[in-house]
Amino acid sequence: MFKTLMEKTAKKKKSNIVLALDFPFFDLNDKKNLFYKARNIIDEVHPFVCAVKINHHLVLPLGTFQGVKKLIEFIHEKELPTIMDCKANDIGSTNKVIAKYYYSAGFDALIANPFVGWDEGLKPIFEVAKKMQRGVIVLVYMSHKGAKEGYGQLVYDEEKKGKIAQYVSFARKALNWGADGAVVGATVPEKITEIHEILEDKIPIYSPGIGIQGGKAVSAFNAGASYLIVGRSITLAENPKEIARILNEKLKIN
Amino acid sequence: MFKTLMEKTAKKKKSNIVLALDFPFFDLNDKKNLFYKARNIIDEVHPFVCAVKINHHLVLPLGTFQGVKKLIEFIHEKELPTIMDCKANDIGSTNKVIAKYYYSAGFDALIANPFVGWDEGLKPIFEVAKKMQRGVIVLVYMSHKGAKEGYGQLVYDEEKKGKIAQYVSFARKALNWGADGAVVGATVPEKITEIHEILEDKIPIYSPGIGIQGGKAVSAFNAGASYLIVGRSITLAENPKEIARILNEKLKIN
Repeated sequence: MFKTLMEKTAKKKKSNIVLALDFPFFDLNDKKNLFYKARNIIDEVHPFVCAVKINHHLVLPLGTFQGVKKLIEFIHEKELPTIMDCKANDIGSTNKVIAKYYYSAGFDALIANPFVGWDEGLKPIFEVAKKMQRGVIVLVYMSHKGAKEGYGQLVYDEEKKGKIAQYVSFARKALNWGADGAVVGATVPEKITEIHEILEDKIPIYSPGIGIQGGKAVSAFNAGASYLIVGRSITLAENPKEIARILNEKLKIN
Repeated sequence: MFKTLMEKTAKKKKSNIVLALDFPFFDLNDKKNLFYKARNIIDEVHPFVCAVKINHHLVLPLGTFQGVKKLIEFIHEKELPTIMDCKANDIGSTNKVIAKYYYSAGFDALIANPFVGWDEGLKPIFEVAKKMQRGVIVLVYMSHKGAKEGYGQLVYDEEKKGKIAQYVSFARKALNWGADGAVVGATVPEKITEIHEILEDKIPIYSPGIGIQGGKAVSAFNAGASYLIVGRSITLAENPKEIARILNEKLKIN
């Protein structure tokens, strides 16, 4: 089970940091360089993180079954789980195909958007995940400014005949659907607290937005996040290893 | 401008059908076969459609800059625009990278989810689109059952201090942001009518869900859709050309 795999790895590596392997748009004539850059960062940083998250920054230029598959194999050699941050939000039949391809490439979990709903929406992803013994992490509140337009809006609850926040509705869906994780931005620590009260310790919170986006690692952690997703603060650093090491120490002392 | 390119192509081809090049999960040892299958369908069907939409069914196994780029070139040789149905819903900096890669691969437009909001959300995609002279189509109401959970929910409108449907809010955003198109499922023709009243003729409606999903082409068209997205009814047919030809005739008579 993905949730258990994460707990074990975090314990073994003594780290709660998920490395987000994000890079800016890359010169397409220089794809090999991007591949080796990503590989080098994994090689340097792996002792200080508990998982690696990959997004379209690598999937689009390198290809899922070309460069990315090789990176996944390399990450697995370092005994780290891999997460595909595809924010799946398509119709069920397409989501099913998406999940099958990403899991076949080796990803241990993928991220999906609950806004798309259950029937003919995320249900097929959870079914594929169960069959292939992989994880599904759902978005509950994202880390950017505009998140308040959607994740932060008030929605009308049919059952309770009243207003609730969209992210509260998403957190409840995460529980009902048996998600393996919930994403809540480190830029909104007060929302981490609120969502953690709903999820209790049943579903761990993954918190992105540390560093460049303004989120503070320690306050996200104190608010109830289980894992901190850190990307450009590490990948764009002159010395990624040192940044990862220091951040890891900071959280442990805390 | 993408909107004008679509109008011109539809007029020239005498068709309002957008071919969705969707296929089931494919044996990964047989990727070449998938590529040639996709290429053959374009070759057969191109006289009866006005654009081709590609989704992860091809991007994941074939690679954006490998097989898919070649397919885009082939589609452009047939003088048809190409749309990437990535349903982008990430943070701004990632959306920017996604848009740059897809547009660089040759796509004329991409589809994005307005749920992610404007600031540090979809704004960077619209900026890249403007700079590279490409299109952005936004989701307003999807074609699957679970769409009612998100797209169909009632949200609280801060300005008007009252409840409005999520899709009405999205249609207004599409207008404010200057989108080149809006996606509304053919499975909900009454919503096409309602959304068409908001968008008037400023933003064309693209309607998926014809055939296998239960949507009827003629009723979606009559309700106000400008383009009908047809996928598996064509791609899985024994004779894709004949299906496309008949559907095209049906809409023209209508």
